[in-house]
Amino acid sequence: MNTNHEISPSLFVKMVLTAWQLQNTRADELLAALSDEQLMQETAPGRNTGTYLLGHLAAINDALFKLLGLGERLHPELDEIFVDNPDKSGKAFPSINELKKYWNEINTALTDRFTKMQPAEWFEKHNSISAEDFVKEPHRNRLNVIITRTVHQGYHLGQMAYLKAPTP
Amino acid sequence: MNTNHEISPSLFVKMVLTAWQLQNTRADELLAALSDEQLMQETAPGRNTGTYLLGHLAAINDALFKLLGLGERLHPELDEIFVDNPDKSGKAFPSINELKKYWNEINTALTDRFTKMQPAEWFEKHNSISAEDFVKEPHRNRLNVIITRTVHQGYHLGQMAYLKAPTP
Repeated sequence: MNTNHEISPSLFVKMVLTAWQLQNTRADELLAALSDEQLMQETAPGRNTGTYLLGHLAAINDALFKLLGLGERLHPELDEIFVDNPDKSGKAFPSINELKKYWNEINTALTDRFTKMQPAEWFEKHNSISAEDFVKEPHRNRLNVIITRTVHQGYHLGQMAYLKAPTP
Repeated sequence: MNTNHEISPSLFVKMVLTAWQLQNTRADELLAALSDEQLMQETAPGRNTGTYLLGHLAAINDALFKLLGLGERLHPELDEIFVDNPDKSGKAFPSINELKKYWNEINTALTDRFTKMQPAEWFEKHNSISAEDFVKEPHRNRLNVIITRTVHQGYHLGQMAYLKAPTP
């Protein structure tokens, strides 16, 4: 039996997108397990609420449209509330139902775009690196952004997990 | 100017190892910023202490030696305390100084092994997947383990960040 596989760009894209999708699924599962009351709580005393972190993760995923050159983002208004300002800024939040709807819309639209991309497109430059820097650091491509965003999402999911009741 | 880069296995490896290394560096920076008293605290009420999570992350990284077939692990004794049992199991922990020493030893030794690996070796099977499954799912290779471990480390670093004093 031949167990040698071609080391192809598509294999590598699959590795990264599988990891990204897994974090989205874990977030979905956590959101399904939490009541609105739990989601509104601080993740730890004096720390960000679950609602703020949900809005933050939605905004960061939404920003991928422009960063990766995939078109207009769906909810640019989230940045002022959930990225440029901290949790208790006094800014009005969308309702939890709206935030969950945005979260799903954004991830569905991203997944749709990702499905249509050719593997080689993932290794092109994204919009936050200069052409000069990209020549020197070609690993800082579009797919690399998905790796860093996946880790970022894991970071905040670790915090949001504290919204669940502790295991006795 | 030609901005086309070869999409090579070595480029993939660099993307993933850069992400892994960044999480280790962030952990190092957090450890340097925390006093022993802070590290011994719970990350949130009723949750894992910083000491437990440091031991947990050290154990999970140490397990990479066997999982990736890179030789014997340095501190197998960590698993019983920090992986197989929860924080308040009553088991005696190594001292914080010892844990920090192990953490550095493990990561230095892993980095040394990683540096000596050829890119293609990263796309081989690891020791927790059967040959049969690997034929069907070749994306579950050694490099993929580093992606999942990097996200796992980000998850717990998000929690350990709560050991720092909150921003007023």
